[in-house]
Amino acid sequence: MFRDPVQSLETQPSPSVGAIRPLRVGMIGMGTVGAGTFRVLARNQALIAGRAGRGIEVVVVAARNLARAVGVVGTDVALTNDPMQVATHPGVDVVVEVAGGTGAAREWVLAAIAAGKHVVTANKALLAVHGSEIFAAALEHGVAVAYEGAVAVSIPIVKALREGLTANRIEWVAGIVNGTTNFILSKMRDEGLDFAAALQQAQALGYAEADPSFDIDGVDAAHKMALLAANAFGMPVRFADAQVEGITRLQGLDVACAEQLGFRIKLLGVARRREDHGVPGIELRVQPALVPATHLMAQVNGSMNGIMVKGDAAGVTMYYGAGAGSEPTASAVIADLVDVARLGGTHAAQRVPHLGFHAHAVDNALAVLPRAAVHTRHYLRVPVHSGEQTGAVGAWLATQQVPVAQVQLACDQALPPGTGPQVLVLTGAVAQATVDLAMHALAAHPAVAGPVATLRVEMLEG
Amino acid sequence: MFRDPVQSLETQPSPSVGAIRPLRVGMIGMGTVGAGTFRVLARNQALIAGRAGRGIEVVVVAARNLARAVGVVGTDVALTNDPMQVATHPGVDVVVEVAGGTGAAREWVLAAIAAGKHVVTANKALLAVHGSEIFAAALEHGVAVAYEGAVAVSIPIVKALREGLTANRIEWVAGIVNGTTNFILSKMRDEGLDFAAALQQAQALGYAEADPSFDIDGVDAAHKMALLAANAFGMPVRFADAQVEGITRLQGLDVACAEQLGFRIKLLGVARRREDHGVPGIELRVQPALVPATHLMAQVNGSMNGIMVKGDAAGVTMYYGAGAGSEPTASAVIADLVDVARLGGTHAAQRVPHLGFHAHAVDNALAVLPRAAVHTRHYLRVPVHSGEQTGAVGAWLATQQVPVAQVQLACDQALPPGTGPQVLVLTGAVAQATVDLAMHALAAHPAVAGPVATLRVEMLEG
Repeated sequence: MFRDPVQSLETQPSPSVGAIRPLRVGMIGMGTVGAGTFRVLARNQALIAGRAGRGIEVVVVAARNLARAVGVVGTDVALTNDPMQVATHPGVDVVVEVAGGTGAAREWVLAAIAAGKHVVTANKALLAVHGSEIFAAALEHGVAVAYEGAVAVSIPIVKALREGLTANRIEWVAGIVNGTTNFILSKMRDEGLDFAAALQQAQALGYAEADPSFDIDGVDAAHKMALLAANAFGMPVRFADAQVEGITRLQGLDVACAEQLGFRIKLLGVARRREDHGVPGIELRVQPALVPATHLMAQVNGSMNGIMVKGDAAGVTMYYGAGAGSEPTASAVIADLVDVARLGGTHAAQRVPHLGFHAHAVDNALAVLPRAAVHTRHYLRVPVHSGEQTGAVGAWLATQQVPVAQVQLACDQALPPGTGPQVLVLTGAVAQATVDLAMHALAAHPAVAGPVATLRVEMLEG
Repeated sequence: MFRDPVQSLETQPSPSVGAIRPLRVGMIGMGTVGAGTFRVLARNQALIAGRAGRGIEVVVVAARNLARAVGVVGTDVALTNDPMQVATHPGVDVVVEVAGGTGAAREWVLAAIAAGKHVVTANKALLAVHGSEIFAAALEHGVAVAYEGAVAVSIPIVKALREGLTANRIEWVAGIVNGTTNFILSKMRDEGLDFAAALQQAQALGYAEADPSFDIDGVDAAHKMALLAANAFGMPVRFADAQVEGITRLQGLDVACAEQLGFRIKLLGVARRREDHGVPGIELRVQPALVPATHLMAQVNGSMNGIMVKGDAAGVTMYYGAGAGSEPTASAVIADLVDVARLGGTHAAQRVPHLGFHAHAVDNALAVLPRAAVHTRHYLRVPVHSGEQTGAVGAWLATQQVPVAQVQLACDQALPPGTGPQVLVLTGAVAQATVDLAMHALAAHPAVAGPVATLRVEMLEG
């Protein structure tokens, strides 16, 4: 039923002399993204060749479910259920890895690199965890590992950072880079739902997976932010050091209270240069945070992604688009294939360094600042026994070195029935360590009637 | 006082063997953009070399005002007031043209290309008018002509279209690509100013030039849209065929009335694929248009630029940032220099085709649709003798094949004192020819008390 992948290619006629032969692609994975990639390559074949200067042909595909795969790719493409056969296939110039995972995928990608093949992947987990090893191997073998599809798929943000903003000292990158959580947060706000109900809707509509933990725990966003930070600042991929907080404990009450203050809550990834006691470091963190409702970032709703970059020359630029989905991801994967097709030769594979900076310019000492040193404004919601204690809460915070920018009693008509009085506080910029200490002490304050909620407030420029 | 540009370079030591020698840059123009480029290159020298893999050195500069230029570049850089000496300089790899204009600049750029030098320019007028000639010459001589700074400077939109979205059949590109007019329109809306007063403020604040005609007449925006359309659709640069309408005749009254309907007025460039009687064509036009106030495009305010692209795979993506200014433009110019520095050799200069598509794939028959065939929704403001004629106006329009989606009397409390009753109409999608005919007839309608205002309404997706 299936053509043998090795046999079938070796008996193909060699490309005509003179013309640039097509780029020959092997694909590992024929799920949603794989199928989208194959479909868009076929649909826009002539147009893509017109841009790339040569054809791009999928010649072999590895899939778990061969019967389903043949339904997508037809019978002209060799099929196998052994990904390693694609990774090392002699008739393949570039391997597209869209199977996911970090174990076997690492093996396939390293095998492809060792076999002298370029790699295109949309696998952020793989690169966030094994990027250093994979990029080093690619450098050694003179091949490119392209991964535009790993971050905010439809948006060419890796290209923008690595090639478009190369003049700039990047000061910060901030983004909504996970569509699932943004969909859930939009639902919570628009329909007044609590987290669990919004998650259920997202799952029913296909915006969240059956096991949504990577998304809702912020891990997926942190994978992406670690990659963006490396490209922005010339540092290694420091996913393991990132501070990651998801949205599972976010209460609908805080979504409503933030709204009263003129803010929206977004799961925001932030990578920011900052000195801590004179030592340069990077804040690298993912957390639900308040952004002003009038800010562009607050207009990124539903499953869309939005990323802002502040450079010293360009100022603030923003990039917006679909963050997931079959064809939006295919758009990025194919752009990477066109980039590879446009390379002049093997040497040119190193045209753009994998993480934006050449090895000698990467600052291996540039570390992620500890959580305690993160410096932002904060939102506090303090349940109190009586609204008359509003002023007292503010005054008390000031005694704890927490600068109070605004303190008010929440308007209880807009809150769920039965909610007791809530004091809302916006602080000035303050170290997390100071906030943590103050919150610990505040829990014992006689005015306080329940657990205090704290969230970061991001006053992004632009 | 000034070092002789030829002598001084030829006596420099040759680059050390083994290391990649720096890219040597000659600059033509040392005005706002030139100075910004020099300053950013100097400030971020190490960082840029770390990204590019080699240094980027300005070795010779042509400037009109040498005394001012030496104040910027110092005495280590050769200076001349003859741009042609830079264009043909034997010690220069790439020529940066940031002097502007379309006459002499064309000569310099063609001379540089003929001398085998890459060219980086931020000159949209030059490329919109002479692009075909310049790109053909570059192709012949195997050099690159890069122009990221020609469109929405800080935003890498040329790169996004030419490289980031290569998988996509682009359906439309729409953008606010002129910061001066966007500043004026924002002022008109925020402060209720009329055009003349807002222009005066823009001039006083440096957002508009003494002769602002290229900006306010929409010509500058049309230059940029013609370049974007070529890259999006694989067509020649058809600036001469674009329909261009500026904002000089826009009335504050319409800004206020649009607001009442839930819209904002923006100077919008639109390039859109559309069939006209079965023949594929491109709408290519710049005009003040209504966009829904809740749409992201309506949040692009002040002197900022924003561009949306709809691709068949990626969906809608958006790009936002400063559209003018010394360092934002420098950001784009330097990104182009880094791209050139990263090229492996002369052949690689053709890595990306100048207008996104290789010559064989450019559709020379793809024409700009005539104004009469442009198909959009419309806003009409009809001064009437009495508000009771509102229904009659709507009914009459329907008899003229103008589909009426909404008709209402403007709330006169929000309009300038002394304004008579105004009927506001939103039409469905309709050909411009039909609107023109109907407006001609409407002028003679007995209910109508003055000139009717019409503006396009763009209901962009995303």
